[in-house]
Amino acid sequence: MRGVIMYGPGDVRVEDRENPTIVAPTDAIIRLAASCICGSDLWSYRGLEPVDHQAMGHEYAGVVTEIGADVRNIHVGDFVVGSFFASDNTCEICQAGYQTHCVQRQPGAASGAQAEYLRVPLADGTLVATPGQPDSDLIPSLLAASDVLGTGWFAAVAAEAGPGKTVAVVGDGAVGLLGVLAAQQLGAERIIAMSRHADRQALAREFGATDIVTERGDAGVARIKELTGGLGAHSVIEAVGTQEAMMQAIRATRPGGHVGYVGVSHDVSLDGLELFFSGVHLHGGPAPVRRFLPELIQLIWDRKIDPGKVFDLTLPLDQASEGYKAMDERRAIKVLLQA
Amino acid sequence: MRGVIMYGPGDVRVEDRENPTIVAPTDAIIRLAASCICGSDLWSYRGLEPVDHQAMGHEYAGVVTEIGADVRNIHVGDFVVGSFFASDNTCEICQAGYQTHCVQRQPGAASGAQAEYLRVPLADGTLVATPGQPDSDLIPSLLAASDVLGTGWFAAVAAEAGPGKTVAVVGDGAVGLLGVLAAQQLGAERIIAMSRHADRQALAREFGATDIVTERGDAGVARIKELTGGLGAHSVIEAVGTQEAMMQAIRATRPGGHVGYVGVSHDVSLDGLELFFSGVHLHGGPAPVRRFLPELIQLIWDRKIDPGKVFDLTLPLDQASEGYKAMDERRAIKVLLQA
Repeated sequence: MRGVIMYGPGDVRVEDRENPTIVAPTDAIIRLAASCICGSDLWSYRGLEPVDHQAMGHEYAGVVTEIGADVRNIHVGDFVVGSFFASDNTCEICQAGYQTHCVQRQPGAASGAQAEYLRVPLADGTLVATPGQPDSDLIPSLLAASDVLGTGWFAAVAAEAGPGKTVAVVGDGAVGLLGVLAAQQLGAERIIAMSRHADRQALAREFGATDIVTERGDAGVARIKELTGGLGAHSVIEAVGTQEAMMQAIRATRPGGHVGYVGVSHDVSLDGLELFFSGVHLHGGPAPVRRFLPELIQLIWDRKIDPGKVFDLTLPLDQASEGYKAMDERRAIKVLLQA
Repeated sequence: MRGVIMYGPGDVRVEDRENPTIVAPTDAIIRLAASCICGSDLWSYRGLEPVDHQAMGHEYAGVVTEIGADVRNIHVGDFVVGSFFASDNTCEICQAGYQTHCVQRQPGAASGAQAEYLRVPLADGTLVATPGQPDSDLIPSLLAASDVLGTGWFAAVAAEAGPGKTVAVVGDGAVGLLGVLAAQQLGAERIIAMSRHADRQALAREFGATDIVTERGDAGVARIKELTGGLGAHSVIEAVGTQEAMMQAIRATRPGGHVGYVGVSHDVSLDGLELFFSGVHLHGGPAPVRRFLPELIQLIWDRKIDPGKVFDLTLPLDQASEGYKAMDERRAIKVLLQA
């Protein structure tokens, strides 16, 4: 099969790879309906994380072609969506909704999803079947559920977005934009998207943003305060992962408010005393997407949400390199790859 | 009147000071029923915070002797308890339960409480009257409510201590010990106190601790994990304020669990990536004691809790210097000063 390999920073190639096979009896193999590139793939593309001949891709949706001997709930022919962390979904941590911290978790388990086939460990726990075979126009949204939607949703839940709340969103990538969608679905009264790109602002508004703030850093914080009677937002979603974005999020939150952070922290260091006197709640980390999948799949199936709109560029899998370039240069929000 | 002045680190004197007077029409003057020394006073005593001729003391309970023209709810003769941050208790932040971040807050407003009289700003918002004049044996507990009990209680609430939860407490000072009491009152199933001092261990057990862990740092974390099936505690209270204590708290918490931190962070710096992958909730800061005062006063009044037990040394106000020394040398958990 064809699959994407990142040889090193900036060097993405599509090559012939061996088809994955069942390794453990709890594995399943799926034929991917489509693949996509994640904002987090850009960290290594830009040389900010080490990378060496890595099979890329961790978002996936598709049809089960083979299952291991111990798989019970997932069947060949099912259309399934899963998360980037394999989890058993039965341990105490999973049952509490933190499947990314499952006692059996397998972090890069589903890596190599920018390809035609994928092996998924702990299939019974990791995968969720859709109610039937999806119409093709639902594929992008189901693929989004696998990570960016689930992650934006977790951020909104962690930030306690809900009725009567003003929610600010730091980061206008796919996760931030879907954080806006999640906040809207969770009933937030006012949603402030922080973005200086017209196309992303437009999508944020489509997803439910009521206000746009173009300022960043201290100026961005000042603007959020101005919009919230000097108090700050009740809920702030951090979907970038830099020091600036994290401090922007904490400082834009009112005392007693909630910061939901899902940007993978790179060189972030929090000053204890500032955090102490901020009085905010801080929660985040690798999103337990699996917790939300049944609900998100249903919303997509019923066409109540259309998170697939974050894909603004579709390319053949063989042109993955161009997809990375387009996202790196911010010409595309998110790229869909078709085998 | 007599009052405690810290001239510099290690140099505490009791001197004649002018009696406080009404400054703003929202002020009240109270005659203190007793005074006490806080663990946080030791930071400056030890030279870890700047101090220069400072009137000490921020915990107080006593009888109102005078009120400003605009005070409505508090009356001369009332026995009152207040918090170390003056707050109006009516703004949006106060109403949300974060009175230490009140839009009108006055941080060191009640400073100088190791004395005979005290001026309290925003009296209507800051003070809570007891149901009547308290029996003298209730005075230590009412004084504890003003800070250490309220702070330990907030930490337990921030850590979401409650039924079915295992709560670990880092710090065996008065706040940590009262965090144990709070966790017990909030219905926690299991309470692990971390302490290596026999007297404090005994008080922790009296307050509801079910387990004692004497190890610290990584060994302490390992022990907590051992006691919780490898997962970590659901809730961890951090009541110290050092880097070691904060990391001990975060690492002893299971993913998805809650850290409630109330130790004033000194030189604490949190690594973003470690925090991200911990998956914990983090909440804390200067405790909004005012939120809990009505409930805490009632529990004390009804003799359902006896937080005054943290006072294990009583001295005349004039011997405050010896009181500081005893706490610094850990010969006393908390010192009560009588005028």
